[in-house]
Amino acid sequence: MRMAIDAMGGDHAPEEIVHGAMEAVSKMDNLSITLIGNEEQIKKYLTETKNIDIIHTEEVITGEDEPVRAVRRKKNASLVLMAKEVKEGRADACISAGNTGALMSSGLFVVGRIPGIDRPALSPTLPTVDGKGFLLLDVGANVDAKPDHLLQYAIMGSIYSEQVRGIFNPTVGLLNVGTEDGKGNELTKKAFDLLKEAPVNFTGNVEARDILSGVADVVVTDGFSGNVALKTIEGTALTMFSMLKETFMSSTKTKIAAGMVKKDLKGLQQKLDYSEYGGAGLFGLAAPVIKAHGSSDRRAVFNAIRQAGHMVEYKVADTIKTTMESIRQEKEETNE
Amino acid sequence: MRMAIDAMGGDHAPEEIVHGAMEAVSKMDNLSITLIGNEEQIKKYLTETKNIDIIHTEEVITGEDEPVRAVRRKKNASLVLMAKEVKEGRADACISAGNTGALMSSGLFVVGRIPGIDRPALSPTLPTVDGKGFLLLDVGANVDAKPDHLLQYAIMGSIYSEQVRGIFNPTVGLLNVGTEDGKGNELTKKAFDLLKEAPVNFTGNVEARDILSGVADVVVTDGFSGNVALKTIEGTALTMFSMLKETFMSSTKTKIAAGMVKKDLKGLQQKLDYSEYGGAGLFGLAAPVIKAHGSSDRRAVFNAIRQAGHMVEYKVADTIKTTMESIRQEKEETNE
Repeated sequence: MRMAIDAMGGDHAPEEIVHGAMEAVSKMDNLSITLIGNEEQIKKYLTETKNIDIIHTEEVITGEDEPVRAVRRKKNASLVLMAKEVKEGRADACISAGNTGALMSSGLFVVGRIPGIDRPALSPTLPTVDGKGFLLLDVGANVDAKPDHLLQYAIMGSIYSEQVRGIFNPTVGLLNVGTEDGKGNELTKKAFDLLKEAPVNFTGNVEARDILSGVADVVVTDGFSGNVALKTIEGTALTMFSMLKETFMSSTKTKIAAGMVKKDLKGLQQKLDYSEYGGAGLFGLAAPVIKAHGSSDRRAVFNAIRQAGHMVEYKVADTIKTTMESIRQEKEETNE
Repeated sequence: MRMAIDAMGGDHAPEEIVHGAMEAVSKMDNLSITLIGNEEQIKKYLTETKNIDIIHTEEVITGEDEPVRAVRRKKNASLVLMAKEVKEGRADACISAGNTGALMSSGLFVVGRIPGIDRPALSPTLPTVDGKGFLLLDVGANVDAKPDHLLQYAIMGSIYSEQVRGIFNPTVGLLNVGTEDGKGNELTKKAFDLLKEAPVNFTGNVEARDILSGVADVVVTDGFSGNVALKTIEGTALTMFSMLKETFMSSTKTKIAAGMVKKDLKGLQQKLDYSEYGGAGLFGLAAPVIKAHGSSDRRAVFNAIRQAGHMVEYKVADTIKTTMESIRQEKEETNE
């Protein structure tokens, strides 16, 4: 399989992107990578060229660019050319750690949607206490979601969790303000009724308080609330680590204690680092499109490539397509 | 001033409620308290009766009761009688650690709204890194908010922060998926435009990632997203503390280190404990109504009473009323 990777996206591009790519081709069978970006800058770090090609371009979409406009105007940006590789069949999947909005726009306008999916969903896997992790979608691709969208997220999330994460009959929870049936706003009340009838293992409403405890394998929500949940987890974890550091630096005694648990705390931090689970998939597109975290290092890039590889291998996009098609047919038959 | 307190609400009622009440009357001048609940059970803990009266009732609304129905049917429930004390002018404010939904219903149906406020907002003060804290509203009183509601939250939050928390010209942020102008869903885009013109110190969009760093003194959002943010903070903090505990218990070395920082970590936990800031005010009602956390101990109850005392003293409800009235008049004059 071949993957197209935006070599210029993210805080540590192209260095960490190139290193992640080299690690991936060395460890994964049958993998070729096309790096898209400034050839001169890429070559500075590319010490092993086997199975790695470069498409040179000098245009780049930055974090400050307005997404939709940037994708339309900067036709030769590394991120846009990357999506084009997929669209035109020269790559099976693509990955960028760059501008999230621009990646969503390229995904939508260049790669294209799966028939039956109204809106793609940005879907990171987040850590849980037991280390199993859970999939949260959507975290911001679609901030004005309709009940049908949430239903589609549940189907896509279940397929991904089953095929890529190897979870048998994954549980699906609906993020809500309470766990009781009938709770919520207009959107979740309607979505609840749709999910009850859906071909997924729906276990009901879940509260944000419990998602990190692994209350469900797949948690569906609208892009606004999902974004709030994701960023609140990040913000709270960062705040606590900074308070913890302050606590440990407050006296000689605490400094000594800090030295004794330093390695263990590092492990804790790693446990909470969701780049361990790869990037956030943009589900619902015709091929796997992965958003790696902006601060991705080579390890995170490698994890995102491995994740995209699994999505290609297990034909996630195809399965979503055929599932949506059979749901459509079933509906038509019921209506006849 | 006199406060009506639901002696039967919360996980540790009536014991901790009674102790919190006794502490409050002993420390606060001119305070009388009416405890509402089972007299026999209350008297078990009431060792000092000065300035404390009891209204006996055996009916109680539990956490399992459906809020609106419970308030309508259990007319003699401690929580309902408490709200009646305020409604009929025998108390200046009321506090319950019981069923949140039932308290909101009693507030709305018994205590009543301030003219000009469409929906009350549940408004806790949450901790920030610098210890200053910030006000988040709404966290779930109104899960289908309109742009006008968010405007009203901003006005109420500003008045509370200025008068009770003593913050001069408090900054107001709109919780959103990005900090740039123009970001967000339909609701936040419209609310942004209203807030720009509002008589508050609006500083723009804020992200959930930054709210614990104190990016704004008042953060306004719809009740659904606010509830998600609040519960995500709780869940993430709890998860991290449990992981931290696990880390510290993993070896002899880490256990020794744990012993050395035990007291300091306790301090960290306290810093994150938002009952330190009192309960969550139900803003927009004719008199202060405070929801104390369900797990409130005597200290949290005392903090909630002190908070309600400040709200009465600084006439928060009156100020909201006159502010809304003057906004209404201004609008009428502009329209003439």
